[in-house]
Amino acid sequence: MTAKTLKNVRPMSGPVTDLHIVDGRFAAQAPQGADVIDCGGRILLPGLVEAHTHLDKSLLGLPWYHNEVGPRLIDKINNEREVKVALGLDPQVQSERHAILAMSYGCTHIRSHVDVDTHHGLAGIEGVMATREKLAGMVDIEIVAFPQSGMMTRPGTAELMDEALAMGADLVGGIDPCGMEHDPKGHLDTVFALAEKHGKPIDIHLHERDALGWFSMEEILDRTIALGMQGKVAISHAFCLGAVDRGYVTGLHERLAQNQIHILTTAPASAPVPAVKELKAHGILTGAGCDGIRDTWGPYGNSDMLEKAMHIGMRNNLRRDDDMALALEICTFGGAAIMQAEGYGLDVGCRADCLLVEGETLAEAIVTHAPRKLVLKGGAVTARDGACVIVAP
Amino acid sequence: MTAKTLKNVRPMSGPVTDLHIVDGRFAAQAPQGADVIDCGGRILLPGLVEAHTHLDKSLLGLPWYHNEVGPRLIDKINNEREVKVALGLDPQVQSERHAILAMSYGCTHIRSHVDVDTHHGLAGIEGVMATREKLAGMVDIEIVAFPQSGMMTRPGTAELMDEALAMGADLVGGIDPCGMEHDPKGHLDTVFALAEKHGKPIDIHLHERDALGWFSMEEILDRTIALGMQGKVAISHAFCLGAVDRGYVTGLHERLAQNQIHILTTAPASAPVPAVKELKAHGILTGAGCDGIRDTWGPYGNSDMLEKAMHIGMRNNLRRDDDMALALEICTFGGAAIMQAEGYGLDVGCRADCLLVEGETLAEAIVTHAPRKLVLKGGAVTARDGACVIVAP
Repeated sequence: MTAKTLKNVRPMSGPVTDLHIVDGRFAAQAPQGADVIDCGGRILLPGLVEAHTHLDKSLLGLPWYHNEVGPRLIDKINNEREVKVALGLDPQVQSERHAILAMSYGCTHIRSHVDVDTHHGLAGIEGVMATREKLAGMVDIEIVAFPQSGMMTRPGTAELMDEALAMGADLVGGIDPCGMEHDPKGHLDTVFALAEKHGKPIDIHLHERDALGWFSMEEILDRTIALGMQGKVAISHAFCLGAVDRGYVTGLHERLAQNQIHILTTAPASAPVPAVKELKAHGILTGAGCDGIRDTWGPYGNSDMLEKAMHIGMRNNLRRDDDMALALEICTFGGAAIMQAEGYGLDVGCRADCLLVEGETLAEAIVTHAPRKLVLKGGAVTARDGACVIVAP
Repeated sequence: MTAKTLKNVRPMSGPVTDLHIVDGRFAAQAPQGADVIDCGGRILLPGLVEAHTHLDKSLLGLPWYHNEVGPRLIDKINNEREVKVALGLDPQVQSERHAILAMSYGCTHIRSHVDVDTHHGLAGIEGVMATREKLAGMVDIEIVAFPQSGMMTRPGTAELMDEALAMGADLVGGIDPCGMEHDPKGHLDTVFALAEKHGKPIDIHLHERDALGWFSMEEILDRTIALGMQGKVAISHAFCLGAVDRGYVTGLHERLAQNQIHILTTAPASAPVPAVKELKAHGILTGAGCDGIRDTWGPYGNSDMLEKAMHIGMRNNLRRDDDMALALEICTFGGAAIMQAEGYGLDVGCRADCLLVEGETLAEAIVTHAPRKLVLKGGAVTARDGACVIVAP
């Protein structure tokens, strides 16, 4: 039996108290002789949840990549497929570097989309699976088989997706059925057929804006209903929910809520974004992610989901303390619920996945996002003073 | 005579070289016995320029302010006027705290709007002037007399503005002539009359969006031309230049360029923003600022103009290295040119206002915005390893 007591801690910025951990879970009390950690009155949060990223493709640890890529989505996709070869990118090494960086910021759960294409086959899936194995117990990694380069436009990809799911990918991914695939029926029928065959949930990238995105979203809704997949489908990005025509968007919000379709926002500053307060009002489960970081798509991002909560707040014009709590909820409980993370939270019986942050209030913790004093996963220390206890390769 | 040599330094991320400083300015060579500072191959930038902030109103150093303020601009303005009294906010102390924080990030020049109203009179101006005096030589502070609560709507304010300018405020401020003042003619006539009387330039807050903002901007243009004030008028925020109708915006860009009206962007994530690449293409001088930080308006902001360069990049979807250089230019040379900062730059003869930043490239320096190794103002050290050499009150 291992036991710890977190002394002088403020769960969710509440009053100072002591919390106990026995065998990796929060407990009502600790036995004599438990390790005592003085938390100095700091705020305790449940582990941060990175619910939309791309572990296989960051360029962390490599020389600076001079980005001269064209402006369209397809420019970035085509460039990346080639550059991965030129740079000899190793998805195992890159995903380990990326995951360790996320852990240093207090991330305990990651959902990663991983490229599957006819150029690189299943190398990405294999690499991220190896990292998942290597970091088992320190961070939970969920893998989405992601047809980044298209399935309709690249024959042979659907078969690789099928293999990836058989190998151990947890979810079926998808991408802009119109804008990228030019065949919404073909793409979505394939995605849902794979989900049905493997009994796995879906998480689709949808960058399409305005009416084009609405059309694709309705097509996703129709298939979700037809297959009884309520609660098992998530849409990432969902820029079309940030459209100016709120009347149409409200109708979509209602259908999404009715069919328990989840939204994962990356809250980019330069694209329309789902309005998180409206999602909340409609009861739509919402999570968030940093998206790709430091990759051939762009130089931004650092895997810090507390900073991402700040970006969600800034993008959604959240200024009041009560509104900012929503930004944090999305980066913790929201993402965890979408990932169906077992035993998530700070209650007795929950897994002791948690972190100490600086600040008087949750809002201050978000805007400060100071280095994390301590991060625990299943009660064991994974990061201290902003550094992960294991060193990246 | 004082002399320094910056060894192993990469000006603007160029090749490694040595730079010399004699009596506070960059020099072709240094005399024997000059202090030698090994810069470890780091990038040297000219001092960061915070060209739009509010030094008089941050809540830095005070207990967390629980924001429960209403959603409209006027809610924030009315709330702030009252809260300043309730909190006993001292503009001298707050501006000193704020300026020292900015200096720790490598800021060497600040343009601050300072509230002038019938409730607080000239207390803000006096406080920031005292800080300017106290920090003289360590950071240059320009003061805009700013009628935050309106002049048309609060009789007596214009007279106080007149006094502020006579006392030493450097510029005439203004605010939404329609949306806030409900009297564009009255407001702008007063602003331009004050500028003419005192022979001082203008910097107007313009939050008005779309056609309303365009109207106010045209009114500003007309008065600039009528009074021959080309080159002496700046518009802050200018959200209306972020409007969807780019045809109309392009026409405005052309008139702004012809009349040398400058734009200061704060690049908020939740409002439309001027497109910085379009401003550049039209030859419109552009600077940037963090706006108010940690105040009753909202909890965000930290005075780091290198992080602001990142936000400008994210908001404008700048991903290529060459595009990101523009974001940095705005936060350095752009703001400096608007403030007409004497001897700004890294050339021989320029004032040695500069900072060492981490990264292989300018883009990496921006996205990393790691603590600044060293900051110099007039050749003297003002910050080291992320901390200002003087301690905030």
